[in-house]
Amino acid sequence: MQFHHHGYVSSDPRMEEASGTGINRPETLPDVMDVLIIGSGPAGVIAAAQLAKFPNITTRIVERRPGRLEIGQADGIQARSVETFQAFGFAERITAEAFHLTEMAFWGPDSDNPSNIARSSVAPDDPGGKISEFPHLIVNQARVLDYFAECARNAPTRLTPDYGLEFQTLTVDEDCEYPVTVTLRHVGGEKDGQERTVKAKYVIGCDGAHSRVRKSIGRQHIGAVSYHAWGVMDVLANTDFPDIRTKCAIQSSSGGSILHIPREGGYLFRMYVDLGEVSKDDNGQIRQTSLETIIAKANKILHPYTLEVKHCPWHTVYEVGHRVTDKFDDVPPGEEGSRTPRVFITGDACHTHSAKAGQGMNVSMQDGWNIAWKLGHVLSGIAPESLLDTYSSERQVVAQNLIDFDREWSSLMAKPADEFDSPQDLANFYVKTAEFPAGFMTEYQKSMITGTTEHQQLAAGFPIGKRFKSAKVMRVCDGNKVHLGHHATADGRWRIYAFADSARPGTDSRLATWAEWILNSPDSPVVKYTPDGSDLDSLFDVKVIYQQPHGEVEFGPGTPAIFAPKVGPFQVTNYEKMYAVDPEVDIFEVRDINRDGAVVVVRPDHYVSQVLSFEDVEELATFFDGNMRRSAR
Amino acid sequence: MQFHHHGYVSSDPRMEEASGTGINRPETLPDVMDVLIIGSGPAGVIAAAQLAKFPNITTRIVERRPGRLEIGQADGIQARSVETFQAFGFAERITAEAFHLTEMAFWGPDSDNPSNIARSSVAPDDPGGKISEFPHLIVNQARVLDYFAECARNAPTRLTPDYGLEFQTLTVDEDCEYPVTVTLRHVGGEKDGQERTVKAKYVIGCDGAHSRVRKSIGRQHIGAVSYHAWGVMDVLANTDFPDIRTKCAIQSSSGGSILHIPREGGYLFRMYVDLGEVSKDDNGQIRQTSLETIIAKANKILHPYTLEVKHCPWHTVYEVGHRVTDKFDDVPPGEEGSRTPRVFITGDACHTHSAKAGQGMNVSMQDGWNIAWKLGHVLSGIAPESLLDTYSSERQVVAQNLIDFDREWSSLMAKPADEFDSPQDLANFYVKTAEFPAGFMTEYQKSMITGTTEHQQLAAGFPIGKRFKSAKVMRVCDGNKVHLGHHATADGRWRIYAFADSARPGTDSRLATWAEWILNSPDSPVVKYTPDGSDLDSLFDVKVIYQQPHGEVEFGPGTPAIFAPKVGPFQVTNYEKMYAVDPEVDIFEVRDINRDGAVVVVRPDHYVSQVLSFEDVEELATFFDGNMRRSAR
Repeated sequence: MQFHHHGYVSSDPRMEEASGTGINRPETLPDVMDVLIIGSGPAGVIAAAQLAKFPNITTRIVERRPGRLEIGQADGIQARSVETFQAFGFAERITAEAFHLTEMAFWGPDSDNPSNIARSSVAPDDPGGKISEFPHLIVNQARVLDYFAECARNAPTRLTPDYGLEFQTLTVDEDCEYPVTVTLRHVGGEKDGQERTVKAKYVIGCDGAHSRVRKSIGRQHIGAVSYHAWGVMDVLANTDFPDIRTKCAIQSSSGGSILHIPREGGYLFRMYVDLGEVSKDDNGQIRQTSLETIIAKANKILHPYTLEVKHCPWHTVYEVGHRVTDKFDDVPPGEEGSRTPRVFITGDACHTHSAKAGQGMNVSMQDGWNIAWKLGHVLSGIAPESLLDTYSSERQVVAQNLIDFDREWSSLMAKPADEFDSPQDLANFYVKTAEFPAGFMTEYQKSMITGTTEHQQLAAGFPIGKRFKSAKVMRVCDGNKVHLGHHATADGRWRIYAFADSARPGTDSRLATWAEWILNSPDSPVVKYTPDGSDLDSLFDVKVIYQQPHGEVEFGPGTPAIFAPKVGPFQVTNYEKMYAVDPEVDIFEVRDINRDGAVVVVRPDHYVSQVLSFEDVEELATFFDGNMRRSAR
Repeated sequence: MQFHHHGYVSSDPRMEEASGTGINRPETLPDVMDVLIIGSGPAGVIAAAQLAKFPNITTRIVERRPGRLEIGQADGIQARSVETFQAFGFAERITAEAFHLTEMAFWGPDSDNPSNIARSSVAPDDPGGKISEFPHLIVNQARVLDYFAECARNAPTRLTPDYGLEFQTLTVDEDCEYPVTVTLRHVGGEKDGQERTVKAKYVIGCDGAHSRVRKSIGRQHIGAVSYHAWGVMDVLANTDFPDIRTKCAIQSSSGGSILHIPREGGYLFRMYVDLGEVSKDDNGQIRQTSLETIIAKANKILHPYTLEVKHCPWHTVYEVGHRVTDKFDDVPPGEEGSRTPRVFITGDACHTHSAKAGQGMNVSMQDGWNIAWKLGHVLSGIAPESLLDTYSSERQVVAQNLIDFDREWSSLMAKPADEFDSPQDLANFYVKTAEFPAGFMTEYQKSMITGTTEHQQLAAGFPIGKRFKSAKVMRVCDGNKVHLGHHATADGRWRIYAFADSARPGTDSRLATWAEWILNSPDSPVVKYTPDGSDLDSLFDVKVIYQQPHGEVEFGPGTPAIFAPKVGPFQVTNYEKMYAVDPEVDIFEVRDINRDGAVVVVRPDHYVSQVLSFEDVEELATFFDGNMRRSAR
């Protein structure tokens, strides 16, 4: 966390100084704005938290509810999401209050007495932290929303939701300065039922599975509701089932299964209880299933164990559906490039599926982050509008992969125990596919923000298109062991990591030549795109990682200026750009980086865009010429 | 973090449910109260945070200032303090914003050119985490106070400071229900200058080096002001000194030295600049030294490096003093036991010394915690008043040790470079004594709350009288690797750790016999002292650690009930009492615990009180008979 350089910060450094549109921000929704976000679920709040960091953009977020979400909904937090929370500054806080999922137990019919269940195996969750240094958490969605809302409120633009406003419809007219006209309706309060029309440059629809934003732009939600129902309950209960604080898949021979999830706080747990196939003419009757019926069904599946429910703060019934929208913005399929997309849909509004792979909230947050930084760049004038086309093309692939995965997993979960070839089948699938539900299988294809894989072998451990997988390094200035990737906070900046060649630090080297180019060449993206009067690192965070231990690297006359920029009103040195290897885990080894050095370019949302050599400066320049503009500012 | 068992907690689980005196707590200072704390510095706020957790005790804290501390004062946070923050629930948050001190550099005159300084050595700070799993931090005192204030505010009694009230004097009259009469004076606001008299059962004086509470009880502050002055400044500056983000002791040949401390946020740093000897008739003139003079002096010492100060949010000048008060309560020396102490002094009010060993805030917090849990027990009726005598006897020894250490360290720091036998002397002293400034050398002597060392060899790694040094274990219920000691939160409870014998879990064993005794014997402290109608673990948190890995330990009919108590209004099982070894770091090995088992008793403030065998039940009963009472409740 870097602060004090704009003057002493006495209270919580997580609260940034108000600036731009955050000074005298109107308390109520204005008539016009840059971005209007519809819905304050996971996709909406992360988009708000990211856009709130751009001081000159006016972003508002409307929510139908009268206040914060209090209970229910999602609870699975994959490691990629915790990594994302880290970028937004609250990973350590939510981790402290969440349940940590370290293993999963599989229960099936006892082979000696199939009317009883017995534990068949226990699979560790990401043993040894190979997939990620972040944990797999379970915590109520309400807390995730709280933390993102805090980020937005503490950001320079002081963004807070406008509650009690429901989206009605919208129209787009490209000829206006604010092309999207949105009709809202007040829900509750003095103005209950009254309509309100506002205008925005862009709208993000985060309004859930029944999205009206989706309907208003004519997108098709393709797929089908399945006819299998599940009862879900968050309960306090006493039981003799020994694995009540372990995630379990429980398959009974009596038909039916339970997905069991311990929750934060040490007592509460959630059970997804199989309610079986639903006839096609059920017409939602299954949703009337009582809590008592769900509990009775759970007891039947758990036999010989019993469950005595003491308190149930929340329960629901749902039917699994698997749908993906035909496109995630308002430019019809095939017409990309004909005009700028103005309306985007995210999360459940464009992909719906079962809750049981614990994916929904996680993928939705990545949707929200993806579109938000891009809007931030376009509205700040540092990127062309065409950047916005990449949102739908990138995220639709991810959504389809999710649907495919979830369909397989939820079918397996619903399959009767006697139809499995082996009791290990479910456990094997779980272990084999672990990286997907952890959130790390997203791999963006070549585009204006994802380069070619021509030089991939220079840093094979940073696959182009996948998220930058952090590793430990030693900060030169203070000998702190830190995770290099954890310094990539959600500040909307591009990262350029220069992994040095083996020359002695401070001497002539390939690195030094490159550092001179990026600081001074008229072709350098730093020179070309950094606005006049801004700090040297305001758009590009350029860091160096030397191959030597930190005792052999020293700040001094040989330090390239790009790695020790002067920042803030007092123009003091930022010392947190220079790193050395951690002798215990050499990043050059664990990420397979060429000893002649490599340049790794990383997007504001952590995805690797480019791997280049120090000599590939022309390619580096061309890459950024494709996705940046010089701001008029 | 355990919650939800009293019903669903929707928002921040760090906010506990209001209860007892926290319901309808008067906004302004009442006329009578159980405890009045004078001063909201480190000792005062931790005492408030601890007492706030006792629902039936009315505690108030008055502070002369109109609001929170904003700047300046202490910044060194030893590992023991971070351990303490963990117990109060904010270690991970303050750690995220603090500077992490991992090494110290020693600079002296360059042997080739003594008018220049040169680095002589670098010493790692607690290499490998041998002293503690917690880091050594630097962060402004204001943030420490903020977090403790938040704890107090979020505790059941909803304690917040009463600002703008200055202590005048007090009198003690043992014959009253509220024996201490305190006169306060309003500072600022409408009532500025008006006096106010209130009554309390106990008063804690946390009012600093010039403590009026100390004077009002006639205690003597023994020792002398030294005649050596230091200028201190928190600054943003540019410099070519390469170790500006490393803690440094810098000795110049030109006379004078600097203790240099990087601060939180990556830019700010603090320098203690030697201003030299002060003549005895100086009469405080040295304190008028200007910032410019301090900066000039720093530049002289740093030669050939230079320091260009850009911004100085805070600076001061002080002279080193070393004083300890003759006793830390109002019962005169030699008269202990003649009556109950009613007034206690803590922190700078009873020990003053230099700032340069970074100890003051840390030792003060341990003072405050020590007296607070004891007052909590006495006022809750679960401990005899004689417990309060142990405050002064325990903490005075600690203070004297601190003064002795600090005198040696600050003298070394002020010693001219040419008077050292070797340039390594200072570095050697620093490394050799590291455990003391880290806060772990406190060792309480035998008393009503510290037992004999007769059975120490059963768990040699938990020295009686020293703080319980945590180690990793595996929680049985969910396979989470956790630090056993981190579950010892500041809830005022005694901890009894049963390290099991090697018998198979759930079978007859020495452990099982002991577990039966502590659950059911009329001599058991749990049976004798736990109030009727309270949860089984309300006073004593009894945990078991098995020698087997967690896969071999299972909740079931063989689980002793003391390790799976039913708690809260729904009487659901608390599963977080059973632990297994972490196969990677066997706690029985790293803490040298006898394989026949051992019982380790730990105080509410983490200090080990007793080590016993499973058969020493009579000693266990006698120990608690000496420091507990059955509450009338």
